Amino acid sequence: MTRVAIIGAGPCGMSLLQAFRTAEKNGDAIPEVVCYEKQSDWGGLWNYTWRTGTDQYGEPVHGSMYRYLWSNGPKECLEFADYSFEEHFGKPIPSFPPREVLTDYIKGRVEASGARKFCQFQRAAHWVRYWNESDNFTVATRDLESNTMSAETFDYVVVSTGHFSVPNVPHFEGFNTTSARVLHAHDFRDAREFEGMDLLIIGTSYSAEDIGSQCYKYGAKSVTISHRTAPTGFHWPEAFKEVPLLTRIDGKTAHFKDGSSKDVDAIILCTGYLHHFPFMAEELKLRATNRMWTPSLYQGVVFENNPKVMYLGMQDQYYTFNMFDVQAWYVRDVIMGRIQLPSKEEMEADSANWLEREAGLENYEHEIWFQGDYVQTLLDQSDYPKFDVQGINNAFMDWEHHKHDDIMGYRDHGHRSLMTGNEQPVHHTKWFEAMDDSMESYLSDKAA
Amino acid sequence: MTRVAIIGAGPCGMSLLQAFRTAEKNGDAIPEVVCYEKQSDWGGLWNYTWRTGTDQYGEPVHGSMYRYLWSNGPKECLEFADYSFEEHFGKPIPSFPPREVLTDYIKGRVEASGARKFCQFQRAAHWVRYWNESDNFTVATRDLESNTMSAETFDYVVVSTGHFSVPNVPHFEGFNTTSARVLHAHDFRDAREFEGMDLLIIGTSYSAEDIGSQCYKYGAKSVTISHRTAPTGFHWPEAFKEVPLLTRIDGKTAHFKDGSSKDVDAIILCTGYLHHFPFMAEELKLRATNRMWTPSLYQGVVFENNPKVMYLGMQDQYYTFNMFDVQAWYVRDVIMGRIQLPSKEEMEADSANWLEREAGLENYEHEIWFQGDYVQTLLDQSDYPKFDVQGINNAFMDWEHHKHDDIMGYRDHGHRSLMTGNEQPVHHTKWFEAMDDSMESYLSDKAA
Repeated sequence: MTRVAIIGAGPCGMSLLQAFRTAEKNGDAIPEVVCYEKQSDWGGLWNYTWRTGTDQYGEPVHGSMYRYLWSNGPKECLEFADYSFEEHFGKPIPSFPPREVLTDYIKGRVEASGARKFCQFQRAAHWVRYWNESDNFTVATRDLESNTMSAETFDYVVVSTGHFSVPNVPHFEGFNTTSARVLHAHDFRDAREFEGMDLLIIGTSYSAEDIGSQCYKYGAKSVTISHRTAPTGFHWPEAFKEVPLLTRIDGKTAHFKDGSSKDVDAIILCTGYLHHFPFMAEELKLRATNRMWTPSLYQGVVFENNPKVMYLGMQDQYYTFNMFDVQAWYVRDVIMGRIQLPSKEEMEADSANWLEREAGLENYEHEIWFQGDYVQTLLDQSDYPKFDVQGINNAFMDWEHHKHDDIMGYRDHGHRSLMTGNEQPVHHTKWFEAMDDSMESYLSDKAA
Repeated sequence: MTRVAIIGAGPCGMSLLQAFRTAEKNGDAIPEVVCYEKQSDWGGLWNYTWRTGTDQYGEPVHGSMYRYLWSNGPKECLEFADYSFEEHFGKPIPSFPPREVLTDYIKGRVEASGARKFCQFQRAAHWVRYWNESDNFTVATRDLESNTMSAETFDYVVVSTGHFSVPNVPHFEGFNTTSARVLHAHDFRDAREFEGMDLLIIGTSYSAEDIGSQCYKYGAKSVTISHRTAPTGFHWPEAFKEVPLLTRIDGKTAHFKDGSSKDVDAIILCTGYLHHFPFMAEELKLRATNRMWTPSLYQGVVFENNPKVMYLGMQDQYYTFNMFDVQAWYVRDVIMGRIQLPSKEEMEADSANWLEREAGLENYEHEIWFQGDYVQTLLDQSDYPKFDVQGINNAFMDWEHHKHDDIMGYRDHGHRSLMTGNEQPVHHTKWFEAMDDSMESYLSDKAA
C-alpha cells in the first residue's frame, strides 16, 4: 500500500489530513497516511505556549504565537469552503477573531471529520532521505516522551512544517553590550511585559505592525519603527515614529541611518523567518525565501527535483487556510493518481511563467490578484468546493484600504462571507479597547 | 590513518585538542583529528552572545553565558597544570576572574600551542552513526554559512558538546496566562533588564545563586528563591527570601507550597540543563543526568556500549578545566593505543564501584573528595603534568566555607595557586561593588 508521511499538523498539515479524510469518507481507497507532529496537539503556530527557545524535550519551540493576538486579516478571506465559520459557531460572528476563536475553528473541522487518527503527536522529524534504488523514503523521527529515534519507510513525503517558526535574526552593532532587552518577534509572548517602555521595532511587515500596535494598546510609552527600505506609511498614533535602519546601539541609545537617535528599553526584531528544513537530506531540501512564488515548486507545491516530495504553504501569504486547502486537495490528487504530473521540463516551464509574472508585481494589489489567480488555478484542478476567489480578492482590497485609513481601527469593520453570502457583524467592542480576547467574550453579543 | 572526530570546541574539546597537539609537538605520530564546532570560534559557553533561542542559521543557541559573569569558584581550582595563569598573564592575578579573563586564558593556551588547525568552525554535527561491518562512523555535519550537509568517516568520535546548553524547562500552573516575564537561565543575558523588579528564581543551584546575586547587585528590588527540596541556606541580604516550591501563578501573584505568596515581575527558571545529544544515533547516545558519576561511561569518559565513542565532561562538576584535561589526556592515550581498555565486563565492574561510592555521598565535602579521587585516578594513567589534587580539594573546602560565611563576599578572597605555589592577590574592588567586568580593569592593580 502507498504510504504518505506528512510532517507537521499545523494549518497546512490539517488541510491535507482533511483532504484525505474527505476522500476516505466518500468511499475512495486512500493511501496509508501518517502525520508526525512535534507538539502535543495539532494546530501548529495557533497553539499558544509561554515557552521560548527550546522546549521541555530540547526541541526548538515551534510557536511564534503571542497572547492577545487577533486576526490581522478578515476571516472571510481565509474561510474554508467545506466548513464555514457559521457552520462551526452556529451564527455569523465578527470578522477579526482573536486566536482562541480561529484555533477552535480550524481544529473543529478536523475533529469533526475524524482526521485525528492519522496523527502521531510529540514526534519530531529528524531525518528524511530518499533511496534511489527503491524509489522511497526513510523518515526518522524522535519520540519526545521516550527520547527514542525510530524510522519508517514512505512513498511520499509532504512537508508542512511552516515558515514562521525559525527566526531570521540579524546582528546590529552594540547588541553585545546594550542593556536594552533584545528579542525576536518569535520570542515575543506578552505585550504587558513592555508596559511603560520605550520600544524599538526593527522591520515593517506584519509582525512589526501588529506587535507595535499591540504593545501600544497595552501601555508601551513609545514605539519607534525602524525600516531598511521604506516606512510602513500607516497613520500611526502620536507615540509612534518611523525611522530608517538602526546603525548601532550605545548603552540604551539607538542610532539610526538619518543621524537621529532614541533611548529605548527593548528592541524587538520583526525581521522575519527562515525557511528551514534541517531534517531534509540535501537533495530534498527546499531553498526558499518569503516571496509570492517559490522557485522549484511546481504548482507551488510539488518539489521539481523529486516530485514525490511536496511542500505546503511555503509562499508569502495573503491567502492562508483556503489556499492551504486547494494545495492539499491538489497534492492528495497527485498522490492518489487523479492528477498526472508532466515532465520535469514542463514543470519547470510552468514555474518559469509564474516567476516571470511575479517579477512584474509592483504593489500589494498586484500581489493579491496574483495569489488569487494561483488559488483559482489549483481550485480548477480538484473537487474542492468551488468558491468566489474574486470576491476574496476584493475583500483583501477593502481590508488594505481600511488599514491605510486607520491602522488601529481596521478590525472594527465587518465583511461578507464569500462562502455563505452573509454579512458578518461588527464586534461589540473596538479592537483598541478590547482587552479580553477570550472566545467567550468574542462570541457574546455584548461586552461583559 | 586513524581519524578522530571531536564534536565541540568548548573547554572539553579544547582540552583534547591540546592533548593531541602536545603529543604531536613531542614528536609522536598522532591520528588525523577533525574538530567540528558550531560557533564561529572556540571557547564554548565562555563566548558571550546576545542571541537567545535559535541563531542566525536556525541552530539552537549554544551559550548560556550572561554579561558580568565572574567565576563562582577560585581559578586555582581549575588551573591547567601545563599552562598556569601566571604564565598567561605574566603575574599573579585575583582568584575570581570575570568571563573575559577566563576566556582569554583558556583560548590563550590552545592559540599558543597551535591547535586551531584541527578545527572546522560554523559546522554543526547533525547525525552520527556507527557501521558494524567496517567498525567506523559516519559524521554528517552542516556547514552553516553555505547551509549544506556533508559527511565524513571516522574511527573514533569524541562528544564534547557540554551539558549546560539545552535547558530543562518545567511548566508551572499559570505560566500560560501570567504577564510576568518567564525565562530560563539559559536565556538570561543582562541583569540590568531586571532593575527595580521583584524577581522570582526557581531552583537553588549555581545558576540560582549567581543570577539572584547578580540581579540584586544590579538593582533588582527583591529576589525570592523557590526550592523543591531545601533552601540554599546562605545568609542572603534583606531583599532575599527563600520559599518552598511554586505551586501556581495567578496574574503576577506567585503562590508557594507553604501557602505564602508574592507579586513578581519576572520568573527565572534556574532548573538546570538536559544532557541532550540529538545528533547521536540511538545506540551511541549517552543517557545521563547531572550527577557525580555518569553511568555507562568507563573512567567517566569511554562509552561502554561502544568504546570508540567517548564523552568528555559529562559529570556534575566541582573540578572543571583541569579535570577536562586529565580526561582528554586519558582519551587521547586510549585512541593512540597507549592505554588498553579492559573487557566490557571489567569496565562495567569498575563503573559499578564508582556508582556504589557515589551512592554514599552525603554532602558537598564528600562530593569534592570523590571528584578529586576521580581526577587523581585519571592523572595517574597519563603523562599529564602531575598536580596537587588534595591541595585543590582543600581550596574547594575553603571556598565553600567562604560562601557559607558570606555569599556576597566569597569572591573577595585570594587563594594560592597549586600549580605555581604563589599566593594570588585580593581584587582591588569588592565583587559587589565591581561593576566593570572588563579584563583591563581586572588586570590593573587599582580601580579606575
